[in-house]
Amino acid sequence: MNIILVEHHEITADTITLRDRRAEHISRILKSRPGDLLRAGIIDGPMGSAQVLAVARREVTIRLDCRQEPPAKAATALILAIPRPIMLKRVLAQAAAMGVQRIMLINARRVEKSFFHSSQLSPAGIRAALLQGLEQAGDTRLPEVTLHPRFRPFIEDQLPPPRPNGPLRLLAHPTKKPVEMATASLRQSETGPDDPLPAGNLRGAAPAAVPARRQMLAIGPEGGWVDFEINCFAKQGFTPFSWGPRILRVDTAVPVLLALAEAL
Amino acid sequence: MNIILVEHHEITADTITLRDRRAEHISRILKSRPGDLLRAGIIDGPMGSAQVLAVARREVTIRLDCRQEPPAKAATALILAIPRPIMLKRVLAQAAAMGVQRIMLINARRVEKSFFHSSQLSPAGIRAALLQGLEQAGDTRLPEVTLHPRFRPFIEDQLPPPRPNGPLRLLAHPTKKPVEMATASLRQSETGPDDPLPAGNLRGAAPAAVPARRQMLAIGPEGGWVDFEINCFAKQGFTPFSWGPRILRVDTAVPVLLALAEAL
Repeated sequence: MNIILVEHHEITADTITLRDRRAEHISRILKSRPGDLLRAGIIDGPMGSAQVLAVARREVTIRLDCRQEPPAKAATALILAIPRPIMLKRVLAQAAAMGVQRIMLINARRVEKSFFHSSQLSPAGIRAALLQGLEQAGDTRLPEVTLHPRFRPFIEDQLPPPRPNGPLRLLAHPTKKPVEMATASLRQSETGPDDPLPAGNLRGAAPAAVPARRQMLAIGPEGGWVDFEINCFAKQGFTPFSWGPRILRVDTAVPVLLALAEAL
Repeated sequence: MNIILVEHHEITADTITLRDRRAEHISRILKSRPGDLLRAGIIDGPMGSAQVLAVARREVTIRLDCRQEPPAKAATALILAIPRPIMLKRVLAQAAAMGVQRIMLINARRVEKSFFHSSQLSPAGIRAALLQGLEQAGDTRLPEVTLHPRFRPFIEDQLPPPRPNGPLRLLAHPTKKPVEMATASLRQSETGPDDPLPAGNLRGAAPAAVPARRQMLAIGPEGGWVDFEINCFAKQGFTPFSWGPRILRVDTAVPVLLALAEAL
């Protein structure tokens, strides 16, 4: 936990008394004393510092001074075939830590049906994993996560059609070609506001949109995409993108390919 | 397990009978039948295919045909402050999957003493984690891992001195600067044979050498490097390298920074 994150509604006149794992972290891991300054932020708001006012065994009171902008977000939206729950948790935290703003969890032929009934896929499970990533990275802004249980409507109707010279659309797929060849033909991405197309929003806030003007990276399930899916993505303007012939586990593939996509 | 890996000494006249987790994987996960072809390889040797000859509940016999070169290795050697055991296991598997050839596990001020007594740091523990990465990626060649319990002798005596226009030496350290600025001044790396400087070799084979002619990436402990360590690395020609101000957990930092280092 490299930043103490609090909800806006928890704050009363700049102070807040913590009684959960955050209090435990401050008292037992950081061993903070009254007067100490900690890094802190307001979820989906500004960040700054917190001064420790009082430390008891299970209760810590802090005073917030949050006036800084959180770090810039990544330019790449992530489309992810739902992985098994333990990997989903890890990958959501990784993506949040890396500053991803938009994560679309989609079904695919090789996604196991049982994954849809995992508590990790509940709004609370997703939110907890994302917060863990933000607390690690030192960010306050939660990514927006949407769930798309049907592959074809997602690809054909919810994704905005590709535009000539539009932002990059990358489809992760291991290839015999080294990464230089696989990425050689890629164009530079544009940035801008998203098109307002509705999708199932897990966060229950503003209506979710599938981004049209943001770079996208689609990463498949264990066992990979099937040919039908690859063809669907190709029709939507996705270019194959890989780290060569090596098959990476999803919790390695996500950071590797996100980093390379951001570096393009 | 995307490749069945066998030891050379297990093979008798091209066939081998498996009775361990590999047999279980073939019979229960892949549900293979006699005649099926599987991807297979000989540890530290060639790769190719295995034909299933017989499948019983806990015993699978295969015939090997391994004549292909394994995939090319990464150009970057990894210097890693020893992380806590569960992370060490994960990061060794990630690095092996990404094709790292050389991993130096070093001590640092913020490495907890107890980590040195972990079974994950035993030769068997390290080997098991590396094999898991190779089985995931489809590679046969084990990285060489060395352990350096004293920071200063490693940095000052075991690392070859930097050379003008020599290969890149990168020190991972979160920075306020975006990645473009942090990496802008980096030079292209050279490749070639390693200098024969001895170090403690965990694999018990040829004497280990700290590579002089290979790109290097050093990643610090939870809590980061201390100033003394940063200065030592700087004297050895290491350039700060980061993914911006975000603090990534080691199992995210390793794939991200390795991918960026390889892409330079």
